[in-house]
Parts: sequence; C-alpha cells; structure tokens
Amino acid sequence: MRVDIGNALDSVAMPGVPRDALDRLDERVADAHERIERGRAGDEFGYAALNLPERTDPDAIRAAVEPVAGAEAILTVGIGGSALGAATVSTALSDGSEPGLFTLDNVDPAETVELLELLPLADTAVNVVSKSGTTAETLANFLVVREAFERAGVDWTERTVVTTGPDGPLRDLADEHGLPALDVPEGVPGRFAALSAVGLVPAAIQGHDVGAILAGGREVTDALSGSLFETPAYAYGAVAYALCRRGAGTVAMMPYAERLEPFAEWFAQLWAESLGKDGVGQTPARALGATDQHSQLQLYRAGPRDKFVTLVRPSERPSCPIPETDVEGLSYLGGAGLGELLAAEFEATEASLAAADRPNVRVEIDRLDARGIGRLLAGMEAACILAGELSGVETFTQPAVEWGKRAARGLLGGGDFPEAEAVAEKTTLEVE
Amino acid sequence: MRVDIGNALDSVAMPGVPRDALDRLDERVADAHERIERGRAGDEFGYAALNLPERTDPDAIRAAVEPVAGAEAILTVGIGGSALGAATVSTALSDGSEPGLFTLDNVDPAETVELLELLPLADTAVNVVSKSGTTAETLANFLVVREAFERAGVDWTERTVVTTGPDGPLRDLADEHGLPALDVPEGVPGRFAALSAVGLVPAAIQGHDVGAILAGGREVTDALSGSLFETPAYAYGAVAYALCRRGAGTVAMMPYAERLEPFAEWFAQLWAESLGKDGVGQTPARALGATDQHSQLQLYRAGPRDKFVTLVRPSERPSCPIPETDVEGLSYLGGAGLGELLAAEFEATEASLAAADRPNVRVEIDRLDARGIGRLLAGMEAACILAGELSGVETFTQPAVEWGKRAARGLLGGGDFPEAEAVAEKTTLEVE
Repeated sequence: MRVDIGNALDSVAMPGVPRDALDRLDERVADAHERIERGRAGDEFGYAALNLPERTDPDAIRAAVEPVAGAEAILTVGIGGSALGAATVSTALSDGSEPGLFTLDNVDPAETVELLELLPLADTAVNVVSKSGTTAETLANFLVVREAFERAGVDWTERTVVTTGPDGPLRDLADEHGLPALDVPEGVPGRFAALSAVGLVPAAIQGHDVGAILAGGREVTDALSGSLFETPAYAYGAVAYALCRRGAGTVAMMPYAERLEPFAEWFAQLWAESLGKDGVGQTPARALGATDQHSQLQLYRAGPRDKFVTLVRPSERPSCPIPETDVEGLSYLGGAGLGELLAAEFEATEASLAAADRPNVRVEIDRLDARGIGRLLAGMEAACILAGELSGVETFTQPAVEWGKRAARGLLGGGDFPEAEAVAEKTTLEVE
Repeated sequence: MRVDIGNALDSVAMPGVPRDALDRLDERVADAHERIERGRAGDEFGYAALNLPERTDPDAIRAAVEPVAGAEAILTVGIGGSALGAATVSTALSDGSEPGLFTLDNVDPAETVELLELLPLADTAVNVVSKSGTTAETLANFLVVREAFERAGVDWTERTVVTTGPDGPLRDLADEHGLPALDVPEGVPGRFAALSAVGLVPAAIQGHDVGAILAGGREVTDALSGSLFETPAYAYGAVAYALCRRGAGTVAMMPYAERLEPFAEWFAQLWAESLGKDGVGQTPARALGATDQHSQLQLYRAGPRDKFVTLVRPSERPSCPIPETDVEGLSYLGGAGLGELLAAEFEATEASLAAADRPNVRVEIDRLDARGIGRLLAGMEAACILAGELSGVETFTQPAVEWGKRAARGLLGGGDFPEAEAVAEKTTLEVE
C-alpha cells in the first residue's frame, strides 16, 4: 500500500495540514504506535486485530469449507462486521468465473423471499456468521433460510458453514448437527475481523489463496513503525485525523475499481463505528470512481470545505481495448483501453480537486489480488486504530447502537425494555 | 408520500428547527413556490423537470422497447443521471421474476470484460443513454459492447434502444441503423430526468406500468402548494435546508428496503450536484436500514452534531414469516415476520436517534409499486428544487465537473487542454 498525502498539505489545500504540523504530529504518532504495539503484545481487546494476519489459520478455513467446495453460489448470512468483510474480500477477488456471491444482511422480506427463490439451493453454500449467535437479523434470516432448504428437500446441514463465538445458539446448533464451525476471534470487534474466518470463508469457498490474503495483511502489520513518514497506514490515519481537526468532518472514500465498492462500505463501517463517538468523529461518504465524478464531484469540488477525498486504485488492471471509431469527436478514445481512460479520469479528478484547493489523498495497491486486498484491509485497520489513538476515543466499542437493539427487541415482545416505550412517545408533525 | 418532521424540531433535536422559525420559513417557501411555478409555466431550464410526469409519453417508450420485449437481461450503458434514475426505478419494481438488470456506468475494464462474458447477448437488451452522445465513459463502453455483440454474431442493431438528444453521434447512429430512439427531454439536467425515457426504459422492458409511475409523479407535482405544511416534498426540502443552516451539513439517506438502495444513490446525486456549489451544500451519505444500524448508527447517534438522518420506508411489505424456534433467547422472533422485525428496527432507530437528540425525518410511501416510486422521485426532485431556491444556488448546473473532464480528455490525446498539464504538476508526499 502506498499513500500520497501531498495534496493534503496546506500549500495545496484548504483545509490542509502545514508540513511542520505533520512533523509535530509525528511525535504523537510515535507514542500512539507504542501504545498500539503494547496492545498487540498483550493481545488487548481490539489491538489484537492487528495480530490476525499472523494468527488466523488458513488450513482450518480450508478444511471447514471443504464440504461445500464447488458450490455454484455462496450465501453469507450475517450483518455489519459479520458480512462486510466477507463481501469485501470475495468481491475484490472475483473475476466472474467463481461461484455467485449473495449476502443476506438485512431483514427485508421482499429481498429474502426473492433471493431464496432464485438460488440453486442444492448447490448453494451457506456461510452464517454471528459472534453471539443471537443477532436478531442474522438468526431470523437463518431460520428462514433453513426452512427454505427443508422445503426444497435439501439437507442444510450438508451445505452450511458456521462462524461464531465459543457458545450461544449457533455454536450449539453446529455441535448438534456436526456442522463445520470456525471461531470468531476473541477480543476483536466484528469490523476488525475481516482477516479471520469472519471475512475469509467465501473467498476460501471460491478457491482463492487465503494464505496470500493473510500474507498481504502481515506485510502491513509487520512493517508498522513509529513514524507516519515511514508507514503508509499511519500516514493515512494521521492525515485523516489532522484534516478532521481542521474542518474536514467528512471523508469521501472513492475507489476507482468496481470490485472495491464493498471495500468502501467496509471502510465506512470501520471509520464510523470506531471513531464516531463522544461527539467527535469523521463521517464516511462512500463513492466510486469514475462513476461518481458524474454525481458527487460537483459537491466535493465546489461545496463546503468540510471534507477530503480518498482516491484508491490498483496500479495494474486487465486490458480492455476500446475499438477504433471514425465518429467525429470520439476518435480520441479508439486505441486507448478502458483502463487508460479510467487512469486518466483518476488523475484528472485528483488534479481537479487540487486545482480547487480541496484536500485529497491517494492510496494505491499494485494489483487487486489476494495480497493486495490483504494489504488494503490491514492498512486501513491500522490507520483507523491510529486515528482513534490520536482522537482519544474508545476505538473498539460501539455503545450507541445498544439502545435501538433493546427497543426493537421490546417492540417484538422479546422482553421488558423501557426503550420500547419511548418509541410510542414520538413527536409528530406529519405533512400529507 | 408522507413526511414527518416532528423529530427535526428543536423541542426534540439539537440541531433542531424552532416551530416558529418554520412558520417564518414558510413565507419564503411561498415565494419559492411562486418562482418554481413560474419556471414550470415557462418551461424554464430545470424547472421543466416538474412537468415531466405530465409530458412524458408512456406510449412512445412502450413502442420503442417493443423490439426487445422479453429480453432475459437489460444492460444500461450510461453514467450519472443517465444511469441512476433507470437503476432506481427498475430495481424498486423488480421482484426477481423480471429480466436481470445490469449497468455499465463505469469504465473499469475488469468489470466490463466480466459482464460481457456473463451476459446472454442474444437475449440482452441494450439501453444506451447519453444526452450529448459524446460522454466519454458511455461511448467507450458502448463501443466495447457493440464489438462484443459483433464477435458473438449477434446483431446489436436489433437489441439496442437509444435515448439521446436531438443531435450528436448517438442520434446519428440511431438514424443510420434505424434503431428505436427516444428523446432526452429538453431543458432538464440528467439527474432530474428519471421520469422520462432516461429513467423509464428498463422498467418498460421489464413490463412495468410506465403510465402508473408517471401518474404517481403527477400526483406530487399537481399537489405542490405554497406551504411546507401542506406539501410533503416542500416539508422535506425546507427542513433539510433549515437543519443545514443550523449545522447539519450532512444528510444520511437511509431507506429501509433493499430495493431502494439505488434510490439512495440517485438521491445522493440529486442533492450533491444540485445543491453543492458556491461553498455551500449538504453532503449526502447513503445508508441502508436495517443493515447500517450495525455500521453507521454509532456515528449518527453519538458522533458530531453535524447531520440529520432521513428514514424512508414503504408502509406495506410482502409477508415472510420467521419459523418458530425453541432456541433459548430467539423464541421471541418466531411467529413474527421479517417485515415486522424490519418495522420494529425502523421505529427503534428513529426513537434511538430522537432519544439522543439527533434530528431525523421520516418519509413514507404506501407501497413500493409503480405509483409509489413515481411519488418518491417527484417528491424528492421538488424538495431539492425548493432547497435550491431557499439556498440561493443555481440548482440546475454542475460547473465544477467540467475541469476534470477537460483534463481527462487532454490526457488521452483528445485535444489541447491546459488542465491536462496541471495534472503533471501534482504535489507529492508519498509514503511507501
């Protein structure tokens, strides 16, 4: 992973970070790095995430998915951190020759019913993920999926791989039916667990080299050092923090690769849930290049000076030549390839933001392959942990989501929760 | 469309809008409404968008798609406003029994090559959309698509529907080959053109009732009045503006329906490109309920007080019962349906934001059907136009995207553009 923060300097951008402020910030990066390394050494909650590339056993994952190897479709049932990492890794590596990827990470009846009708259940692998084994959305969906298999006369116990914590309903189920079961790693919140069974099962079923993904991650975690000028991940995290302090309350994450669309979503969870607390945090906005040049770029370039744009790309792409054409005004396209067009758009957008004094950061990996995605995920996790240290927040908790969970459970008759009563007290001013 | 702004009042939320400030704002809404109606009456640039539900001829669209009726797959080739409206309408109405929907709205060679290998070209309808007929991404993709058809021995002229302006390369192509060709409406920017051929062709190929979509839109545009308290669309636009002025620089658009995921993307373009200029504007962040409760909600509820959340849902949904289970801790789910679970999550999230004094607005339609999606699109367009009037910006232009287009063109050898030279002058501070 390479990170170029040149366009985030105050000589280019407003808001921008003065070069000498970066030097001073680097002293805090050194302290934060020490804290992070201490956390890793002691396997402390959250910090342990950076040990996953080393700790995760690719052989255990390969063995667990063996019974469903060759599946035509892979259905992940999970939500949040139990779904986004898996979607990110497997989509990044898909070239269309692999099994189809599907995710049930919502409880929309329209979608669930439709998907279960479309899937070739007898050739579908089900990847169900919940740390507690009690996540309402995931378990409700899994109950529905299980029933669909039964109705279709397909033995779901032959098609299901479970990833869960040491106990709970999913673990019991796996034990009872002898399902292949993998462990959600201890001491790591879901959003930091992509480089474990939580994020790697679908890629393993697809036949990708899980060991290479982990090796890519490990290259990043092994190379973390006490200076942002030597550690790309820290350069990103430190500059994001420094820009946020100077008014860039939003980060637009804009990969230039369709297969990184779920990555932007994964990043959005990582950033929002880890750093958004105590009244501070930076809001992630997901975008996609070049598509969103025709949508969000107007705002990014001419709207309020409250954001910075992160442009991500693989340097190498497959080739797809654009056919020659004699149509007037289009002939310049012929002879180039779609990849060159996309590269020109990437550089043009970067320059166009800089020309309007808008801060932006470039993140590059060599190729969108197993090592590349491992590097990118580990790099952004390290960046996020650093930004959390600099911000002084509890990076690894998400207390603000509990209220709503209790209210929903109460509304469904799952117990007495005062939060459910608050729902009825809603202030209404309805316009019809 | 119903809009409930109760949770945006300052009695509930911070930032929030005082009730008497809304009364005063309503006087400006009356003036803005007059301006909007004058623009509609004179078919002025942009304002003409609100006449589309009346002007668009559903028969012309039905006739144009007749040659590709029964297609197994629909491939839209367009970008920005030439793709998002079509994806929004057709996805909202899809229940899985229709042809598969695909969009080439990027120039990622990996994606394009893969998609063209997967599509059953002989049974694929191609919907190519570009107002100028020269949009680089769209035309490059179309050249590649055309060649793929030729290579597969499929006559692309039998499978292609064109939507474009009165002249340009695409119009010439349609004339030359006798392709069915529909008009991009005059005087309407792409992002406001969903309720024309630009947005309706795929839905028409799917066999949906295009007339009903337009009728839904017309219910909204016919009922616009000079008061936010009587016009749901204006209630939304006015409150979004009032919250933005009070510090909510971000709007999270969070539909509770998988099929409205493209709607959030369409809204993001509408809002960003129309209102993001002159140093002002509100940043749209796309989210999805219930999924993003496990991702973004932590930030929305406990991060900076710089955003409001828009919760969108259809009141009625298909049924999908959750099977009974005797698993401890999950039995409360049995007997309910996924729809009830989703409804409980919607209300719980709304209440959880209100309990943390975070502004939020509820938008409801009865059903996710043809009329419903027509209402929603027309409603949000009217809301956006009102917000533009209140902000004093040029809602219908997007000047800030031109610089990058010229730079990209210059980089590809499509002419001499000084912008291309600026690309080479990039400030670099690379960390490897």
